[in-house]
Amino acid sequence: MKFVKNDQTAVFAFGGLGEIGKNTYGVQFQDEIILIDAGIKFPEDELLGIDYVIPDYSYIIKNVEKIKGLFITHGHEDHIGGIPYLLREVNIPIYGGKLALGLIRNKLEEHGLLRTAKLIEIQEDDIIKFRKTSVTFFRTTHSIPDSYGIVVKTPPGQIVHTGDFKFDFTPVGEPANLTKMAEIGKEGVLCLLSDSTNSEIPNFTMSERRVGESINDIFRKVTGRIIFATFASNIHRLQQVVESAVAYDRKVAVFGRSMEAAINIGQDLGYIRCPKDTFIEASQINRLPADKVVILCTGSQGEPMAALSRIANGTHRQIQIIPGDTVVFSSSPIPGNTISVSRTINMLYRAGAEVIHGALSDIHTSGHGGQEEQKLMLRLIKPKYFMPIHGEYRMQKMHSKLAIDCGVLEENCFIMDNGEVLALSENEASVAGKIPSGNVYIDGSGIGDIGNIVLRDRRILSEEGLVIVVVSINMKDFKIAAGPDLISRGFVYMRESGDLINDAQGLISKHLNKVMERRTTQWSEIKNEITDTLAPFLYEKTKRRPMILPIIMEV
Amino acid sequence: MKFVKNDQTAVFAFGGLGEIGKNTYGVQFQDEIILIDAGIKFPEDELLGIDYVIPDYSYIIKNVEKIKGLFITHGHEDHIGGIPYLLREVNIPIYGGKLALGLIRNKLEEHGLLRTAKLIEIQEDDIIKFRKTSVTFFRTTHSIPDSYGIVVKTPPGQIVHTGDFKFDFTPVGEPANLTKMAEIGKEGVLCLLSDSTNSEIPNFTMSERRVGESINDIFRKVTGRIIFATFASNIHRLQQVVESAVAYDRKVAVFGRSMEAAINIGQDLGYIRCPKDTFIEASQINRLPADKVVILCTGSQGEPMAALSRIANGTHRQIQIIPGDTVVFSSSPIPGNTISVSRTINMLYRAGAEVIHGALSDIHTSGHGGQEEQKLMLRLIKPKYFMPIHGEYRMQKMHSKLAIDCGVLEENCFIMDNGEVLALSENEASVAGKIPSGNVYIDGSGIGDIGNIVLRDRRILSEEGLVIVVVSINMKDFKIAAGPDLISRGFVYMRESGDLINDAQGLISKHLNKVMERRTTQWSEIKNEITDTLAPFLYEKTKRRPMILPIIMEV
Repeated sequence: MKFVKNDQTAVFAFGGLGEIGKNTYGVQFQDEIILIDAGIKFPEDELLGIDYVIPDYSYIIKNVEKIKGLFITHGHEDHIGGIPYLLREVNIPIYGGKLALGLIRNKLEEHGLLRTAKLIEIQEDDIIKFRKTSVTFFRTTHSIPDSYGIVVKTPPGQIVHTGDFKFDFTPVGEPANLTKMAEIGKEGVLCLLSDSTNSEIPNFTMSERRVGESINDIFRKVTGRIIFATFASNIHRLQQVVESAVAYDRKVAVFGRSMEAAINIGQDLGYIRCPKDTFIEASQINRLPADKVVILCTGSQGEPMAALSRIANGTHRQIQIIPGDTVVFSSSPIPGNTISVSRTINMLYRAGAEVIHGALSDIHTSGHGGQEEQKLMLRLIKPKYFMPIHGEYRMQKMHSKLAIDCGVLEENCFIMDNGEVLALSENEASVAGKIPSGNVYIDGSGIGDIGNIVLRDRRILSEEGLVIVVVSINMKDFKIAAGPDLISRGFVYMRESGDLINDAQGLISKHLNKVMERRTTQWSEIKNEITDTLAPFLYEKTKRRPMILPIIMEV
Repeated sequence: MKFVKNDQTAVFAFGGLGEIGKNTYGVQFQDEIILIDAGIKFPEDELLGIDYVIPDYSYIIKNVEKIKGLFITHGHEDHIGGIPYLLREVNIPIYGGKLALGLIRNKLEEHGLLRTAKLIEIQEDDIIKFRKTSVTFFRTTHSIPDSYGIVVKTPPGQIVHTGDFKFDFTPVGEPANLTKMAEIGKEGVLCLLSDSTNSEIPNFTMSERRVGESINDIFRKVTGRIIFATFASNIHRLQQVVESAVAYDRKVAVFGRSMEAAINIGQDLGYIRCPKDTFIEASQINRLPADKVVILCTGSQGEPMAALSRIANGTHRQIQIIPGDTVVFSSSPIPGNTISVSRTINMLYRAGAEVIHGALSDIHTSGHGGQEEQKLMLRLIKPKYFMPIHGEYRMQKMHSKLAIDCGVLEENCFIMDNGEVLALSENEASVAGKIPSGNVYIDGSGIGDIGNIVLRDRRILSEEGLVIVVVSINMKDFKIAAGPDLISRGFVYMRESGDLINDAQGLISKHLNKVMERRTTQWSEIKNEITDTLAPFLYEKTKRRPMILPIIMEV
């Protein structure tokens, strides 16, 4: 890396800085690169029709012989979703905890990449040694089991990456390894990369155990069916639902592809334990009394195609809402999903269900620690340099303030952007350069074939629609041979806009005849004449600016 | 009204039930109709390119001779925004408070309707008498001055419409008239229509006075410029900013068209009072020290074209962020705006500003009362029948629960939909029928010319793009004369997809030649052949389903 000195460690990210999602980080010392996570991002509204966003992997591809491995903190999509796209380019070894590897295996199988992938399961106490660097782990708590922080030991010092974390002192499953964190801090940490997601939230995050109590309360009180929607990957949550079901003598039916997969993998790996007959098939639901049934399903974010949305709008093949049903949203809506969640809740109420949702019902807790937890991490790890990761700029900024409050020098805090390289010596740090880190859009099966022009076109089409003007021109005698015909989509309903269309045709004919008199052979001139005539006319008549597409046929 | 008995009062809504927005209500006794409010709704995301939504006014138009007047509760867009579109159809008299009428006057002037409009200003103690019905008012508190509840006295009993309300016991401006509400309740109320917006929020809403204290705190502490963004219509908030500015010796510069209008109207009507030299022109900002300036602007919802967004992204003509600037968001993001607000905050931080926002800073309060306030209204008005209005179904449902808690019989609560008619006798109530109440979309200058087909097309275009296939066919000898040519927009970037396009052209040619051999003269057959050939090919190659538009030219 040309802008980093030979005795310096470089820390950088391809995604996950100044944004939520597509987390992908790198730590490099000389010719050894440790990659941490390879996530996808779900696109925001203005990326019309885009399925996912991944980072530009070109630096990784160019330096493939230096990559020692990809280390996975945990199995959420924004940390593992990019792996199939990355592995298609470079077949590097992947290290991860049991559950993360289980989920990655599923994913690679779907993409036909499992056979050649090198997957290595790690335990918390493993030390993965390379020639100049080594990697160790410490257990954290998060909304998915088997979450780890990652320590990269490099000659100038230790680099600690927290992954996503909260501190849950009474978790379901293993607690965070405070002792090991304290030891790492005692050994000395050169730079901490810490999760900033909830840096604007002052509270200490509620324990998963408290959610379990709320679930139990619901099972105790409700006499009809319980329809329980949550994130499939929150396997501890699923486990708690299953435990309550067993305690209150209900059978569990599972709906939604990702929920079925999570229950299977959770049982295979031993996270979900219950008597054999706890789970029932969809067909058995109606044979049981309402108070003996729990329906566990996807769709807590109001995703239109998920099980719960289809139950709510009455299009689910197997489940209809019946009076007495109670639907639980064990989740909080991600910004951007608030409206669709709200719509689903309305439909459920209209269908006659009772709905339990929202912060007041203690039925969900975040997987990310608030300010006090972030400060606890800072006090345990005691880094010299600090780099807030995972979060928008405002969250990184706030997290830096917390770091300063916890004793990190202000000049030692680096709020970075994707692609920026932090060069670290024992006693010096600076942003030293930039590597490629743009967005790559995935739409359908295409990777990176949707660019800004396509997106701009989609936006114009979506807001104003399209008018196509087709005209045949006889280039021998410079006359209009046929047309102009107007075809529109997404602009006005043509059958009811006859006058507008006729007037526009007349206007274009008049102007084109004039152009023809000039005996032009420049198609661009003819096209411009059509656009320049039609655009102001349509704007005057409709105050809209549809995309205008002239099509000239030569006869 | 055929489904209502002659001695019954009918209550119905064209908008504002099961939704937030386009509030428009009617109370009818025999041949007298009292209309209450005429609002617009801002469209949700899936209404691509639509500017506003208004209700179907056909019942009003058909019964224009029965309309006694349109009574306005307050001057917010979701209560007055439909007036120009309604007045274009029926020139009915409009009754409203001073500020509401001021805002309506502006609006009608823009639409060229002011000259013929009949506007009648009301005072709280006015009684507007008609032959069989009469209308009175009671003052409420809300996030805009001059807000009223409306009482329609009809022979079967009094119908009370709260408008939007909160109970602010220490408001800026006049307090709510609790005494009059109690008197109305004592006289006896047949049916209460009450604002449900915040029925899911248990808290008693924070007083506007508390917001004023927070504003004062900011003015006391901040040493740089203050950029203050809020809703232009919240004139009491503007007044508090102006008061703090005077107290801390700052001059106020105003940006954004609606903010300038609000400051003008607020001063004209006496809501905003300050020394003459308090306001300065944009050009004067840079002549004053930073601690002598407040910039009051629009854009607190992250609206892309508003002053604050342009300041944040560096495209504002007159204001750039300088170090030391503090930007205050005196607002909370409406669902659907969370992402754009967040983006604006990030840009401001990046530009070097300090940003004050969010619930924790006590810098904004809702204009709608929470559960305790809704219960207070119910206990004061003591209605026999209850109809929750303004809000989605879930909010109406929760509001009904509160009404039952406050002594309304469960069977006397009516959660209604737009268009449903509630027929009320002294001792009987039932949903008796339905009148037209659909959505009418306004896009540019078109009213109602955008229908579902246009919206469906816009959605497909926005997500998958468009492929046009142009082919000239010689119908004499059934041969392709030119083409097929493929043109795409929003699908793939064509210059980089040469192979895909070539293969598609070849495939279409092959299939069309076969169709030609059948000597068909059916264009629809040729078009279908193109679509049926191309769609599966493109899906296989790209996993996308663009709109396919075949254009056949006959030569």
